[in-house]
Amino acid sequence: MSLQFYYSPLSCSLATHIVLEHLGADYEAHRLNLRDNDQNKPEYLAINPKGRVPALITDRGILTETPALLLYLAQLYPAAKLAPLDDPFALAQMQSINSWFCSTVHVHHAHGARGRRWSDDLDAQKSMKAKVAQNMTDCATLIEREILRGPWVMGEQFTVADPYLFTMTSWMAGDGVDMSQFPKLSDHHKRMLEIPAVKKIAPLHGI
Amino acid sequence: MSLQFYYSPLSCSLATHIVLEHLGADYEAHRLNLRDNDQNKPEYLAINPKGRVPALITDRGILTETPALLLYLAQLYPAAKLAPLDDPFALAQMQSINSWFCSTVHVHHAHGARGRRWSDDLDAQKSMKAKVAQNMTDCATLIEREILRGPWVMGEQFTVADPYLFTMTSWMAGDGVDMSQFPKLSDHHKRMLEIPAVKKIAPLHGI
Ligand SMILES: N[C@@H](CCC(=O)N[C@@H](CS)C(=O)NCC(=O)O)C(=O)O
Ligand SMILES: N[C@@H](CCC(=O)N[C@@H](CS)C(=O)NCC(=O)O)C(=O)O
Repeated sequence: MSLQFYYSPLSCSLATHIVLEHLGADYEAHRLNLRDNDQNKPEYLAINPKGRVPALITDRGILTETPALLLYLAQLYPAAKLAPLDDPFALAQMQSINSWFCSTVHVHHAHGARGRRWSDDLDAQKSMKAKVAQNMTDCATLIEREILRGPWVMGEQFTVADPYLFTMTSWMAGDGVDMSQFPKLSDHHKRMLEIPAVKKIAPLHGI
Repeated sequence: MSLQFYYSPLSCSLATHIVLEHLGADYEAHRLNLRDNDQNKPEYLAINPKGRVPALITDRGILTETPALLLYLAQLYPAAKLAPLDDPFALAQMQSINSWFCSTVHVHHAHGARGRRWSDDLDAQKSMKAKVAQNMTDCATLIEREILRGPWVMGEQFTVADPYLFTMTSWMAGDGVDMSQFPKLSDHHKRMLEIPAVKKIAPLHGI
């Protein structure tokens, strides 16, 4: 059975989508429309009871959560060397970056459009939205200074952290970050746009 | 050089602390007082520029982010079998759980005491705090029904996901979750309290 991949345009599922395509994996992509609330329809909740994308159906079962999917795909195709699988310390560094994207950068971004997760009050949701640009700028600053080694996140080796960073930088300008302040990040973003896998799926994500 | 571990009581660093102790690792623990803002003092920012615990100094460099530290320690001590290292699918399942704890359960909890990360408005922070009990109850429901296989998170095998779940359940009652509704979670919490490593470090975390 080919992998069944559930995504929505320009969401965090973009990272996994790029990796699937880059690997030439045997997969079928299923698009969800978050504005129509597809993620909370019974058919999809049966796949991912959390009501979120991405999800991946494999012949052993269903997997969710971006950092887990990324590491899984890197392990499934070891020859592609998309993670430092033979070096636990380097792998932990990559996992640390992916985990921070997931738990901090993505979460700051989500306070723009998904404030109702954390407050029922409309004014509170507005005030969260107002803080997104600053929080995302702080994240960009940390990535520029401390995280992105260049040319790729982990240095010379292209890894699954690169499509994940590209997903974050794809959000940043829309979140109010002045990308001209971040030359390394901007270079990385441009370099990602040249990758065949990204070119191929870009139209599906409105990039 | 022994591992240098930075933690604060009853924070998410509890998970890593239990694992270090359980493994009998050669480590020194350094306590930070978050109320005194130790995490933002220059000495600590030089270790973790994100100003958060946990952090682990190894002889190859510094690591941060709980899911990354947990996998790293499981890989450093493979004989302890704290992760399904030989089975990429099972490993992805464990990573998925840890990643969700980090990006969703922990983040819901943080909206109780750390709302100022996401809004400068005091009323907004109050309204976030008011939603924590419901969000954490929803997480507890999902864990009880879909995640915790029993007796341990991954089934018969005790893994690093167990100390991480224990950290989440240690927060839940204080966050307003009625734990009597969650017999599997409550059993897991009790079983964790019997583990020698937990008994040993419990006083350091005020458990
Ligand atoms: N921690 C999860 C987050 C998944 C997530 O929040 N996905 C968003 C899109 S970026 C979603 O499905 N949102 C739909 C909703 O909130 O209803 C991951 O990294 O995969
Ligand atoms: N994603 C990080 C989160 C780390 C984190 O937020 N730690 C909290 C304690 S639970 C902290 O250091 N807070 C201090 C602060 O916010 O100033 C992880 O899982 O390690």
